Amino acid sequence: MNDRDYMKRALELARQGRGYTSPNPLVGSVIVKNGRIIGEGYHRRYGDKHAEVMAIENASESVEGATLYCNLEPCCHTIPEKKTPPCSLRLIREKIKRLVVATKDPNPYVNGNGIQMLRRHGIEVEVGLLAEEAAELNAPYFKYIQTGRPFVHLKIAQSLDGRIATSNGHSQWITNQSARRLVHLWRATYDAVLVGINTVLKDDPSLTVREVAGRNPYRVVLDERLQIPNTARLLTDGLQERTLIFTTLPPDHPRVLESQKQEIQVLSVGADEHGWIRLSEVLERLANLKIASVLVEGGSQVFTSFIQERLFDKISVFLAPMIIGAGINSVQEIGTEQLTDALKLRRVHIEVIDQQALVEGFLDERIIFEKALEKI
Amino acid sequence: MNDRDYMKRALELARQGRGYTSPNPLVGSVIVKNGRIIGEGYHRRYGDKHAEVMAIENASESVEGATLYCNLEPCCHTIPEKKTPPCSLRLIREKIKRLVVATKDPNPYVNGNGIQMLRRHGIEVEVGLLAEEAAELNAPYFKYIQTGRPFVHLKIAQSLDGRIATSNGHSQWITNQSARRLVHLWRATYDAVLVGINTVLKDDPSLTVREVAGRNPYRVVLDERLQIPNTARLLTDGLQERTLIFTTLPPDHPRVLESQKQEIQVLSVGADEHGWIRLSEVLERLANLKIASVLVEGGSQVFTSFIQERLFDKISVFLAPMIIGAGINSVQEIGTEQLTDALKLRRVHIEVIDQQALVEGFLDERIIFEKALEKI
Repeated sequence: MNDRDYMKRALELARQGRGYTSPNPLVGSVIVKNGRIIGEGYHRRYGDKHAEVMAIENASESVEGATLYCNLEPCCHTIPEKKTPPCSLRLIREKIKRLVVATKDPNPYVNGNGIQMLRRHGIEVEVGLLAEEAAELNAPYFKYIQTGRPFVHLKIAQSLDGRIATSNGHSQWITNQSARRLVHLWRATYDAVLVGINTVLKDDPSLTVREVAGRNPYRVVLDERLQIPNTARLLTDGLQERTLIFTTLPPDHPRVLESQKQEIQVLSVGADEHGWIRLSEVLERLANLKIASVLVEGGSQVFTSFIQERLFDKISVFLAPMIIGAGINSVQEIGTEQLTDALKLRRVHIEVIDQQALVEGFLDERIIFEKALEKI
Repeated sequence: MNDRDYMKRALELARQGRGYTSPNPLVGSVIVKNGRIIGEGYHRRYGDKHAEVMAIENASESVEGATLYCNLEPCCHTIPEKKTPPCSLRLIREKIKRLVVATKDPNPYVNGNGIQMLRRHGIEVEVGLLAEEAAELNAPYFKYIQTGRPFVHLKIAQSLDGRIATSNGHSQWITNQSARRLVHLWRATYDAVLVGINTVLKDDPSLTVREVAGRNPYRVVLDERLQIPNTARLLTDGLQERTLIFTTLPPDHPRVLESQKQEIQVLSVGADEHGWIRLSEVLERLANLKIASVLVEGGSQVFTSFIQERLFDKISVFLAPMIIGAGINSVQEIGTEQLTDALKLRRVHIEVIDQQALVEGFLDERIIFEKALEKI
């Protein structure tokens, strides 16, 4: 095994924390001495030990003189709300000889300071191995820690000709089970899943994680006029304490008061000029709840608003090899007059999942990748 | 080199005839003796020698006892309109020992008879090596020879959200140069390229082969009311003898007579219940001109008609990683009410071409593959 293999293993460990570490990052760590792994760890859950410390404490022998692999720069700061002491100090104390990290931590409190501190203490530090993969893994954290706003990922499942449903609204199932499994994995990873009220009225979705093992996300509904029926699955399936309804009705509106009496979590926000919920305000409110990542699952109006306002970070389009013809378009008017106005995705990635094409890209990946991949 | 390598070479040779053999198939042949290629040939042009004969005549030594590789079953029939004597007889006379073919020839005059005849004369025949690839290569021929109708291939270039143009009609360029090169290669291969009059009025395309080497196809315009301007590139670029205009105006309509006086090739066909040109009649007329394959390049109305009437064989959708929002949909109403009515593509193939997804599939691939891939 070489450096690359050990980093791959660290990333594999990091992924095991998926869904439980937010708003902290996913971090895995491997300690190698005399060509053999002597300790492994990952950040299991927000508030728990960091990966590096867990790897040190799990080590089968002294880590003095060893190499530590970690997908993220070790922390080096102490601030009141921080739950654990700085890992950098621990690495120095344990006399780790060499550190290999994939990316810098763009957290303004860290941002290269951890690496500098370790170097000043004579630890050999290499940065950048499997950096792209590591940055993709922690994209939500990188966005949130630098902007204070959640990472927004639009997930669209459509026919080849860009329809998410027939004219009659039939949409189950455009995608196949392999695509659905992947979406459930995302649900288990993201802090919240968001849909519009039309999707609730039409499909009565549960938005839970069923096709894979994992925890359920918050479920957020954009519901201007508070039309969600009391009988909706999102309000009756026993997980309703994780359901948040945003409305433009004022807090003292009788329907809002009535819902709150029934312990439905309703949040009043402002409306934009079309009367739609103001998305920037929704994202701010979610950030205040420490929701650092949101998976947007539809419908057309919701996708269109996030795209038109450029309030998303990443988009993933599953394309089923079928043609619907006239039906509901995945995206409506976003103000494109010339082709040069069209929204061009960046860092495009295309893969084939069981006869479906998955096309993904970023709106503006700089906030995710620029600082994290900076040379140091 | 093994059987597979030799067959790959035969297919490579076959492709060199692209654009020139129709309505005959693309055929390549390799002769191997004592582990070494001693002769190669391919069908260069309709009416020319068949590949097997060319390989025999090109051989650097006697082919007695050799193995002959050919992507298609050798012919065995003599009919008045056939230009060359049966290859099977030649193989027998030359004492070829073993024959390896990729697919049967589904031509009703052949359809296994060539193989049977050779076996009866003691030649060892193996069928099926690289059969899928060989069948894809000759899909137009397989369709035409069995049905008398041309192979119809729809080529759609669209944004991720299924738009072929903005609301204002801007569509250049949704796809990138790699995709355009591939389309030009198709143009050089297909007997005809077909567009609707709106595409001509909007883009004034030349529909020629420029990005690759190859011959130009026939250019077919569906033009109900004969609106094509005399100044259109298709009528003025020096290649107008390869331009065919279909109209629903009767043959004695003054505009038709006027066009014919100007040596524009106008063909009158019937209209369907919406007043559109009856596509089945267009395909029949093209078949009568020995046009065995048609590449349909747009626009939306033309794609929709071919799809709604199920008059296409294959569809290829290039997806550019951009979002247009409201604009011109690639496909309009085709009568899908439930999702189960949606047109599901078969034999789906997805590939990535320079940041664009290319999704391809067949409407009903049985006519292409069933007989050709039959065991014998």
